[in-house]
Amino acid sequence: MKIGIIGATGYAGAELVRLLSGHPKTSELILSSVSFEGDKIENVYPNFLKKVSGTLLKAEEVIAASDVVFSALPHAVGEHFAAACMERKIHYIDLSADYRFGSDEEVYSAWYGKPYQYPELHKKSIYGLPELNRQKIKEEAEKGPVIIGNPGCYPTGASLGALAAITKGLTGEGVIIVDAASGTSGGGREPSRSFHYSECADSVAPYKVASHRHSPEIANNFAVMAAKTGIPAPQVIFTPHLAPMNRGILSTIYIPLSAQWKVTQQNVVMPPSKEIEAKTEEIRKLYADFYKDEPFVRVLPAGVYAATNRVRQSNYCDISVHVDLNGSTLIVATAIDNMVKGAAGQAVQNMNIVYGFDEKSGLEAIPMLF
Amino acid sequence: MKIGIIGATGYAGAELVRLLSGHPKTSELILSSVSFEGDKIENVYPNFLKKVSGTLLKAEEVIAASDVVFSALPHAVGEHFAAACMERKIHYIDLSADYRFGSDEEVYSAWYGKPYQYPELHKKSIYGLPELNRQKIKEEAEKGPVIIGNPGCYPTGASLGALAAITKGLTGEGVIIVDAASGTSGGGREPSRSFHYSECADSVAPYKVASHRHSPEIANNFAVMAAKTGIPAPQVIFTPHLAPMNRGILSTIYIPLSAQWKVTQQNVVMPPSKEIEAKTEEIRKLYADFYKDEPFVRVLPAGVYAATNRVRQSNYCDISVHVDLNGSTLIVATAIDNMVKGAAGQAVQNMNIVYGFDEKSGLEAIPMLF
Amino acid sequence: MKIGIIGATGYAGAELVRLLSGHPKTSELILSSVSFEGDKIENVYPNFLKKVSGTLLKAEEVIAASDVVFSALPHAVGEHFAAACMERKIHYIDLSADYRFGSDEEVYSAWYGKPYQYPELHKKSIYGLPELNRQKIKEEAEKGPVIIGNPGCYPTGASLGALAAITKGLTGEGVIIVDAASGTSGGGREPSRSFHYSECADSVAPYKVASHRHSPEIANNFAVMAAKTGIPAPQVIFTPHLAPMNRGILSTIYIPLSAQWKVTQQNVVMPPSKEIEAKTEEIRKLYADFYKDEPFVRVLPAGVYAATNRVRQSNYCDISVHVDLNGSTLIVATAIDNMVKGAAGQAVQNMNIVYGFDEKSGLEAIPMLF
Amino acid sequence: MKIGIIGATGYAGAELVRLLSGHPKTSELILSSVSFEGDKIENVYPNFLKKVSGTLLKAEEVIAASDVVFSALPHAVGEHFAAACMERKIHYIDLSADYRFGSDEEVYSAWYGKPYQYPELHKKSIYGLPELNRQKIKEEAEKGPVIIGNPGCYPTGASLGALAAITKGLTGEGVIIVDAASGTSGGGREPSRSFHYSECADSVAPYKVASHRHSPEIANNFAVMAAKTGIPAPQVIFTPHLAPMNRGILSTIYIPLSAQWKVTQQNVVMPPSKEIEAKTEEIRKLYADFYKDEPFVRVLPAGVYAATNRVRQSNYCDISVHVDLNGSTLIVATAIDNMVKGAAGQAVQNMNIVYGFDEKSGLEAIPMLF
Repeated sequence: MKIGIIGATGYAGAELVRLLSGHPKTSELILSSVSFEGDKIENVYPNFLKKVSGTLLKAEEVIAASDVVFSALPHAVGEHFAAACMERKIHYIDLSADYRFGSDEEVYSAWYGKPYQYPELHKKSIYGLPELNRQKIKEEAEKGPVIIGNPGCYPTGASLGALAAITKGLTGEGVIIVDAASGTSGGGREPSRSFHYSECADSVAPYKVASHRHSPEIANNFAVMAAKTGIPAPQVIFTPHLAPMNRGILSTIYIPLSAQWKVTQQNVVMPPSKEIEAKTEEIRKLYADFYKDEPFVRVLPAGVYAATNRVRQSNYCDISVHVDLNGSTLIVATAIDNMVKGAAGQAVQNMNIVYGFDEKSGLEAIPMLF
Repeated sequence: MKIGIIGATGYAGAELVRLLSGHPKTSELILSSVSFEGDKIENVYPNFLKKVSGTLLKAEEVIAASDVVFSALPHAVGEHFAAACMERKIHYIDLSADYRFGSDEEVYSAWYGKPYQYPELHKKSIYGLPELNRQKIKEEAEKGPVIIGNPGCYPTGASLGALAAITKGLTGEGVIIVDAASGTSGGGREPSRSFHYSECADSVAPYKVASHRHSPEIANNFAVMAAKTGIPAPQVIFTPHLAPMNRGILSTIYIPLSAQWKVTQQNVVMPPSKEIEAKTEEIRKLYADFYKDEPFVRVLPAGVYAATNRVRQSNYCDISVHVDLNGSTLIVATAIDNMVKGAAGQAVQNMNIVYGFDEKSGLEAIPMLF
Repeated sequence: MKIGIIGATGYAGAELVRLLSGHPKTSELILSSVSFEGDKIENVYPNFLKKVSGTLLKAEEVIAASDVVFSALPHAVGEHFAAACMERKIHYIDLSADYRFGSDEEVYSAWYGKPYQYPELHKKSIYGLPELNRQKIKEEAEKGPVIIGNPGCYPTGASLGALAAITKGLTGEGVIIVDAASGTSGGGREPSRSFHYSECADSVAPYKVASHRHSPEIANNFAVMAAKTGIPAPQVIFTPHLAPMNRGILSTIYIPLSAQWKVTQQNVVMPPSKEIEAKTEEIRKLYADFYKDEPFVRVLPAGVYAATNRVRQSNYCDISVHVDLNGSTLIVATAIDNMVKGAAGQAVQNMNIVYGFDEKSGLEAIPMLF
Repeated sequence: MKIGIIGATGYAGAELVRLLSGHPKTSELILSSVSFEGDKIENVYPNFLKKVSGTLLKAEEVIAASDVVFSALPHAVGEHFAAACMERKIHYIDLSADYRFGSDEEVYSAWYGKPYQYPELHKKSIYGLPELNRQKIKEEAEKGPVIIGNPGCYPTGASLGALAAITKGLTGEGVIIVDAASGTSGGGREPSRSFHYSECADSVAPYKVASHRHSPEIANNFAVMAAKTGIPAPQVIFTPHLAPMNRGILSTIYIPLSAQWKVTQQNVVMPPSKEIEAKTEEIRKLYADFYKDEPFVRVLPAGVYAATNRVRQSNYCDISVHVDLNGSTLIVATAIDNMVKGAAGQAVQNMNIVYGFDEKSGLEAIPMLF
């Protein structure tokens, strides 16, 4: 299969190149780059030498020559490439935010500063979180070319952590808080002060508090889950942090438990009671059962915490489950590699679903601890 | 002044050595170490060569020869040294948790696994968070020798972030969540798997979720603040994380706003409204005003986020103030150097208060950005 | 093929597990561990969950059940396992130093503090640097079971950098200096002060200067190369450093040029002359030509420097070639992943050669830049 | 004293601000910045909040209002500010390379691409390495305003490591090799790909091999030392590397020993002989004696290696001394903080010498281990 990648020299694009080069169904990669047009990918990324070679073309040339197209462009610049792919009747998987909001143009344009150019394409697009929309992706792809809005990195970690709880009725009233820390690759390849080594190494800080574009995406996902369960859409607070690591997102998610799941209030200043420990184990089993057929979700055994190094370079989302000392709140920690499950890996997973390939094809890497 | 440090070769002890060596009132440092008794501090820490020299004695020798004693021992092993100091009528500043819980023996023994040996000394001890207890420390020290329970690192960052909100009536019903990330020096000098470079570098993970010993200390502090304001003690959830950095604690604190401070609910999936921004600024000013005479608290201007590298090696607690998109929750981020304001620096600050020295003496270091 | 790994829970052993799990010829991995006997590998390394599972047995059980055995034990404890494998007539690939010194017992025992137990096995053993001994490994393996002494991490980076120069007559009189920096995984899994995060992060330092056990191994390799070329064995100086990174070895190798390769002396305080640049390019081409059929050596194009992040998690050795301003010395920089080409990957490469598999089998990973 | 800093918002400038704010002779800091003219230094560096405040002026205004001027501009743009200071008869300490080459215009212009504008000022300027030129700096400053060319970071670490050896006749024929690794702050504040976190974290690589501008400066320094001793100027090879740390330069210096200092050749593949160890100790003592009155050089005891974390934020140069296994080469490792002894701290040291202050004034910080 000839696979096209638009925007192949950004970090997400290069990660697609890395993963798809090892995909068993890839016969050829066809790449574009605005910044490096005419150059070769292995000159831009010498880590690819002897492994990947390819001249960087125009996006239009990629679309014309490919059987499926991934787009890893910045937000709000590539909407029309979906149209071009639909015209050519080939699938389009967009890693930018452009096709994540479906028909909700108001929210998209409020956050990304641009109205929809192709409203009908957005209506048709599918939000590509396989654990939520696998069936829909399959069905639509059987009917014809699809547009997949590949999820954002933070929304992936947040949504997988909350999915079981919301779907299984664990969630009570109150705000769900998502407190997350990302590695620096999330900031992309373009140098800037925030990601200058001397300014961000050996330090942790929040950024864009109460103003990050992934807030509405997370809220949307939670609303969709709640709708499935027949409960009201939960309110959400999302706070991103930058941590001094190359890859990974660690999300700590605070979910108020519903009445039937709450533990009788204990004295909060005392160590965890047996009741808390039993409830934690019960919920952990529920989570393990909920995700047991998911190829890329691992509910961790008791005593093991989600950690970004244990999913490094893999498509896994690791989940550890806890209950707070008050017995009122479920605390779920999730770890993903922001470049894999949070971007390029999930896009490949979506392609596998679209084509009916084994969902793990090209995503078999075992996480490196270090 | 002859200053004694018991447990001088642990990280907190060595940080005391570093800070007190530069204190204008220090005439001599008298040091002890169980592990390195008889050796010299500059052999254990060659970074001290040419700057600090001193033979490591027994704790008893330190107490006998000092005008004031700092103890930087592990928890639950040095309670009797306070008694020895009281007998000699000299002040005792304890960096361990042993004297942080006052007469609340039940909580202490539940978390630290040991009953009180000297209940009357605990009754007399003062929790050494200057921003909360400055007046009491001063008054008691004027009457005679005091025992200061120097706060834990996490409780310091959490308490300074919540103090203004709880005291000024911003806090409504609901749980206060403290989500915090610490650098590795918090784990001390003893090698272990968790702090082995290859296992923790380039990674973020939570640990001791709903089971960390600083939970009751944070809850106690919040209860004390609430009691002052005449509101019920808030429930607390505290989640610590390990981040790949040497120093620093970044705490993100979620505080439900009281009715009069809430912003009329906006649509949570939309960018921050003008009303949210105005309320944020109002609260920021309230915070700035509240802490304006505090020598070591900096409420950051709008647009600047608390970050651990901006307080590195200093005694500052930096605070940035935010309101979530729902308008319901105050989000406060605080940054401290866990070894300075979170341990040794705060202990020196307490000594300054005890003796009526300028509170900034020995703590004048300007934070290094990198 | 049933593949045995003795010492599977050390870092090199776990890396073998990771690589061999993805090897197309692996039917089963059979693992041992002294420290974790009876436990499961995925409990010791939860990053393996859902990917690798296996009970940790005794070494003897591994040998009895395997078609080929890798040993990743510490030095000087597993010599007899080679004997057991020879008895069973199966190949034995040893990642420790035990079988790297052939019949040179004097040198081995001087550095590793132990005489040979099986001198005849050492005589038979082959030093497993494929670029030097590929032919010999193939030939001996065709005759019967072999013992491969898999090279040390530093000797691999040093030897591949010098091989072309020594073999092709570029090397003149004088000392060859190997100045190298390693990531922390080289220190293994056992916690110690040197590898405690707070003591080694954000810092670079040399260690074991003029006393590292890889010195004689590097000198041996250079002597073997010189003997092939018919020149005297060069003297060697080797200085290791610890750098704050998880993986990788960067070696900078200073090789005095022979008379015919020296550039007419220029004024050393002036920028590089055209003559220096031309000579650099000439040598670069010679290097590229020399290694052109090597599957895991990449001579980098002009302007690209060897860097450990460009070989991360791969079996590549990247080489960049330079000539000093005096025109007298060749400066070769090499980068390897110490855990892959410097340990487990090279061991797999040796297995591939032994069995006549495609040398790249199981080693196809594309380097991750970050 | 009113102290002017031109270029106060670059990293070296900001480090001057940090150090001089704590200098006992500072009455006022007067700052300039081209990029942030009109803004306040504490807005550009919020780590300065509550500690340093100052409006950023024009360079000319700084010169007009100051008693002494430091310049921390990029190379080749501020030569005329020295002229302006000489006119005002105030001392000028330049942290750029502009006044490091004295009358050697040919070398300066070859490397920095610009002829001298004020040749007579260069003739008058003094290379500000106190350990080499203290006496000259004192004497010239007594006569009138001086221009100090503050040394480069690499040349400082290299020169202090070689000074004792060259001056005391240890150096034999052959090339001196300086292999050094720097932290990222050496690259300055301007974001670029090379210092983008994701591209340089967790990795080591050489750069500008045989083409770094510090090569001629190091060679000059060695030539000056050799001239004092009456031996020929040694040839030099200098190779810089980038290491993933904020601060620090670790230099490993290979110095061929002269005939009388060489150890009778031992078999290089054997562990260090008693003779080697004795010679090492002899040289270590010679070094310790040579530097015994230097306030900022520490010759480390046997068994302790130079490491950048042990000099962090201090003006120290730590030196460890070794002899290679061949007995032919002295290996000296030096560690400095590139921003302090390698830049701003040394500039302050020079100011102290110029004015006859205690050389340690403002430079009393005890190194932080972490």
